[in-house]
Amino acid sequence: MESGPLRTMRLLLEYDGTGLAGWQRQKDRPTVQGHLEAALLRLTGEAATVFGASRTDAGVHARGQVAHFKTRSIHGPAVFQKALNALVPDQIAVLAVEEAPASFHARYHARSKVYEYRLHISPAPSALTRRQAWHIPYPLDLSDVEQALFSLVGEHDFAAFRSVGSPVRSTVRRMFEARLEKDPGGQVLIVLEANGFLRHMVRAIVGTLVMVGRGSLGRERFLEIVRSGDRAQAGPTAPARGLCLRQVKYDRVLFGGAG
Amino acid sequence: MESGPLRTMRLLLEYDGTGLAGWQRQKDRPTVQGHLEAALLRLTGEAATVFGASRTDAGVHARGQVAHFKTRSIHGPAVFQKALNALVPDQIAVLAVEEAPASFHARYHARSKVYEYRLHISPAPSALTRRQAWHIPYPLDLSDVEQALFSLVGEHDFAAFRSVGSPVRSTVRRMFEARLEKDPGGQVLIVLEANGFLRHMVRAIVGTLVMVGRGSLGRERFLEIVRSGDRAQAGPTAPARGLCLRQVKYDRVLFGGAG
Repeated sequence: MESGPLRTMRLLLEYDGTGLAGWQRQKDRPTVQGHLEAALLRLTGEAATVFGASRTDAGVHARGQVAHFKTRSIHGPAVFQKALNALVPDQIAVLAVEEAPASFHARYHARSKVYEYRLHISPAPSALTRRQAWHIPYPLDLSDVEQALFSLVGEHDFAAFRSVGSPVRSTVRRMFEARLEKDPGGQVLIVLEANGFLRHMVRAIVGTLVMVGRGSLGRERFLEIVRSGDRAQAGPTAPARGLCLRQVKYDRVLFGGAG
Repeated sequence: MESGPLRTMRLLLEYDGTGLAGWQRQKDRPTVQGHLEAALLRLTGEAATVFGASRTDAGVHARGQVAHFKTRSIHGPAVFQKALNALVPDQIAVLAVEEAPASFHARYHARSKVYEYRLHISPAPSALTRRQAWHIPYPLDLSDVEQALFSLVGEHDFAAFRSVGSPVRSTVRRMFEARLEKDPGGQVLIVLEANGFLRHMVRAIVGTLVMVGRGSLGRERFLEIVRSGDRAQAGPTAPARGLCLRQVKYDRVLFGGAG
């Protein structure tokens, strides 16, 4: 293959996590990183590593995952986009490709990540959104949920919502935003923006918030749980299918913007 | 099983048509009617026929299909809804169940049906909506599409858009509405409401409209094709996955309304 100078390319990705074993490459299991790296190998002959801003878990979706890789191939961004979309399975879509500054790193340079968790609150299930929402067959007091959410904004030790046994240096994260949105179809989105998330953190928060909305956990108790740092006190981990990485933010606007 | 007077129950249904062989019961293939009838047999012991307002084709979705069946079982609507949702596969959802007047017929009493056809117009595919939209990787002139759509409103012979060889008494239908909608996510919906649709009619109209939007078919030519009644002149049939039965209208409001 023709070879040029080493360039850094960044990707904007959408994926349907159903049936995928998450972001991170695994032997013999379909993952987003694995599919992208296999496609790049076929396209360029290079064994590139694709770094994602967020290592989403099995079954979790993305509308705005950002990733990067380095290449000496001479293909332009448009060729990469077309070829990758042709080579990866259709539950992964490459929404945009851009050449980035040489030093750009999708994970280390991310300033914040925005996750949305979709609830289908209705006595009846939904056939069309079942792969992307958690069905809650009882009513929730959304104003209680909203107030509990509000108490998450700011810098907190989120140890109560981390996956048991996951080793990290610090469990303190800064939550920039935590609010509810209503989808035009009537579904409820729990939207969280933070400078980082612990493993299973959004899903543990959602599982606990649903207990608040159902009335089985008071708002004061919710606050105590946050402060306790004790995972055993928080609610169950909500299912992966409701979770979607909406956006990754950087200091400069990516994809068509100034950066 | 306990037996009561013969009652007519009506159903409001949502389904993800992916992997289903359409509405109509078929030997050894998964269909919406087949799944519902099998569930009713298990629940009531009765071999009831479920009549749908629209016999949607393989791969076509529904957000508002209406159906009815007759039963002598003593279950109330809420029990039917819960039990059917538990017994049918999760690509089918029973959104509502009501007891209807004895004479109610989902198909014969329908005054109009509303279909929506979803286009994903973007150079990049969409991973999350790929099962419910047709990906158009080139731009479309939507004002040309809109004007062509407008010419479909009223009573017309739609023979140019029927499935070849499908026998019907008349190919004249009254189109009440034909317009574009923009989805909040930016996708385009072609919305058609008529007193009836010929087999593959919406998909043949959409396939032809996309040619108009792309500039490969003039709007005058589109009108000629409509008037010609000749299927060979119209465009290709658009894929089933973009099509969704949005609503079936009756003279009285169903489900929670006055009727």
